[in-house]
Amino acid sequence: MANKAAGLGGDIEAQARAARAAALLLQAVPTARKNAALEFIAREIESGMGEILDANEKDLATARKAKASEAILDRLTLNKARVQAMAKAVREIVALPDPVGEVSGRWRRPNGLRIIRQRVPIGVIAFIYEARPNVTVDAAALCLKAGNAVILKGGSEAINSNRVLASRIAQGLAAGELPGAAVQFLDTTDRAAVPVLVKLDRWVDLVIPRGGEEFIQFIKAEATVPVLGHGKGLCHVYVDRAADLKMAENVVFNAKVSRPGVCNAMETLLVHTDVVREFLPKAAERLGKAGVELRGDEKARAIVPSMKAATGDDWDEEYLALVLSVKVVATVEEAIEHINRHSSRLSESIISSDRRAVKKFMDQVDSAVLYHNASTRFTDGGEFGFGAEIGISNARLHARGPMGLKELTTHKYLVYGDGQVRE
Amino acid sequence: MANKAAGLGGDIEAQARAARAAALLLQAVPTARKNAALEFIAREIESGMGEILDANEKDLATARKAKASEAILDRLTLNKARVQAMAKAVREIVALPDPVGEVSGRWRRPNGLRIIRQRVPIGVIAFIYEARPNVTVDAAALCLKAGNAVILKGGSEAINSNRVLASRIAQGLAAGELPGAAVQFLDTTDRAAVPVLVKLDRWVDLVIPRGGEEFIQFIKAEATVPVLGHGKGLCHVYVDRAADLKMAENVVFNAKVSRPGVCNAMETLLVHTDVVREFLPKAAERLGKAGVELRGDEKARAIVPSMKAATGDDWDEEYLALVLSVKVVATVEEAIEHINRHSSRLSESIISSDRRAVKKFMDQVDSAVLYHNASTRFTDGGEFGFGAEIGISNARLHARGPMGLKELTTHKYLVYGDGQVRE
Repeated sequence: MANKAAGLGGDIEAQARAARAAALLLQAVPTARKNAALEFIAREIESGMGEILDANEKDLATARKAKASEAILDRLTLNKARVQAMAKAVREIVALPDPVGEVSGRWRRPNGLRIIRQRVPIGVIAFIYEARPNVTVDAAALCLKAGNAVILKGGSEAINSNRVLASRIAQGLAAGELPGAAVQFLDTTDRAAVPVLVKLDRWVDLVIPRGGEEFIQFIKAEATVPVLGHGKGLCHVYVDRAADLKMAENVVFNAKVSRPGVCNAMETLLVHTDVVREFLPKAAERLGKAGVELRGDEKARAIVPSMKAATGDDWDEEYLALVLSVKVVATVEEAIEHINRHSSRLSESIISSDRRAVKKFMDQVDSAVLYHNASTRFTDGGEFGFGAEIGISNARLHARGPMGLKELTTHKYLVYGDGQVRE
Repeated sequence: MANKAAGLGGDIEAQARAARAAALLLQAVPTARKNAALEFIAREIESGMGEILDANEKDLATARKAKASEAILDRLTLNKARVQAMAKAVREIVALPDPVGEVSGRWRRPNGLRIIRQRVPIGVIAFIYEARPNVTVDAAALCLKAGNAVILKGGSEAINSNRVLASRIAQGLAAGELPGAAVQFLDTTDRAAVPVLVKLDRWVDLVIPRGGEEFIQFIKAEATVPVLGHGKGLCHVYVDRAADLKMAENVVFNAKVSRPGVCNAMETLLVHTDVVREFLPKAAERLGKAGVELRGDEKARAIVPSMKAATGDDWDEEYLALVLSVKVVATVEEAIEHINRHSSRLSESIISSDRRAVKKFMDQVDSAVLYHNASTRFTDGGEFGFGAEIGISNARLHARGPMGLKELTTHKYLVYGDGQVRE
């Protein structure tokens, strides 16, 4: 099955064409049949436990030899519990409502035409992701549930694990009598595969890349297929003069410390000048104890002199680590302006009991998700109640914020007449 | 104001940056203020009549010298009635409901977070279009009404007309106390401007190109900003065995003849073999009288021998002219398969009274708009009841089919808490 470098482009195009044919068949498959196939996939994963763990052991051995970081090894590692969790995740997707067929509008025109706007699958989705084998299963199950075919290109370090998982998924599809071509696995570690894949706009309808910002930018520059990026997250928390300072401290601590390596973690703290003397020393102490390095502007350092000095670059940096930049602002307007200039437009929070300031913040900050008195860490499909998510979009079109099943659909118009022609 | 070739990129980026700043101000402007500014723009256009017609005369003289086609000259030409129609179109946009602020979802999470999904403007839209001065005004008014800033790059032949119109729009914005930077006019005929513009993803949120298929493909290949293409329209009408043949003849005639140069015109006619003997000779005669050149497959030519023979390429060609390819099919399934293989996935119609066949067609044809017993020519924002349209999208993401005001918006999530943090 491995693609030879010479024929790589042709092989990938053949797979994309097969995916497109499968997508046409999938679009009208009833929910019960999709769910039955997903249940078969869950069972195939459970019964494939030994084979999956063996393949994963190969991947881990290679990664260890290549001196992969602990973080990479952790994401790559499967064990019995994690394989069981994969099967469980598929069953959770079975339990979610099917968005396909939902009517999102219905009206009649003066000439008698009846128009219905109906949710339909997007078609063929190319999903390009990091070396996390569980994502292979999640992505396949989400795409299938929403009636899409999917082309999976996972991180090279997981190639053996993914190959076995893809074969289990194929067996589940066969048992459920859905087209096996609906889930295509690019069985290659050749980096040249990605630029080929993202240019197949004849067969592929959407590319969802996950990874660092540079990688997303590379995909956008190469792609002719539309891209929904799961990109940079540079989130802010603004502690207003009218904040409950104990609440503010808890939210700030949570937004920075609970999981610093993710896109919904806070990177910059903005504090109103009227409360900075009371708020910042305590907050800085608590953050410092948790190992957070603080980088403040002049006004912040005047109050907490132990802070490092922030440079201009700090306001634009997604640390993804226990580092936090801190700026003192004179007004909510200044906070809004700073955020709109430096944010990745994903998630920001205001802590305040001043309704006017809150309304201004919610109206004028131009980000996907705005929080009042809550942590930015809730930007997540599960936390939003969408069930499993395929990613978080900081694109502005089609999907903005957490992407669940609905975001894997589009719509078509059905127009019923009795012979109408246009003047 | 003209961009010097040397500084072109920098000038365009400066305009895009200014547009982005204006977009931030526009996002929270109430409907009444946007409408007031639009009314001022309408008046500026009316009072600028003489200046507009003079500038247009310059453009026409240049175009005539360059031996532009009648079609191009017609699109370029303004006269008193057409300028009045521009002002009227702006007032029609005033009358449309403002989509911004609309709540499209509202729910509460078990942890007490209240989530609201609200429509907001997209931000900065780059609109690249043919040499039609009326489109300058339409596009500016639609984008403004939906709270967006817009960067206009019109066809070079209309440069003088557009410059005057842009200055009138600017005066209307000033009178309405909206930021003048909200409507940016690229005052250049340098083709190099387009590839620069579509790569400014830091400032521009969406590119809407209008034009031929090759042009759209060029934009997609160059752009890093998301593109909503108004592209090729290769539409089909399928006359089923259970069709009312008189109705079928009327629909076919309308879909081909009423305006052959547009994307929702029919290019290929599919006829069920059981009715082809009765249907095709009469339909062919009527189409022939209207000047339509027919190109049939073997079975069609066996019945109407005067038809030219269709070649394989005919099934993939958007004629945009009085040419029609004709194919005889044995089943609705064969019609569906042909359409899914050759269509541009914009609009198709089935003429039939067989509910099973109609359902199959509506479920399985993968196009933006499907018609039952009606002409494909209704794929249009006005005909759908959207009011003015900025284009018709044959993209599948965000906007599919006619694009009105709603399609010029996105959403954000507002999340209200009382101190929630994530475990």
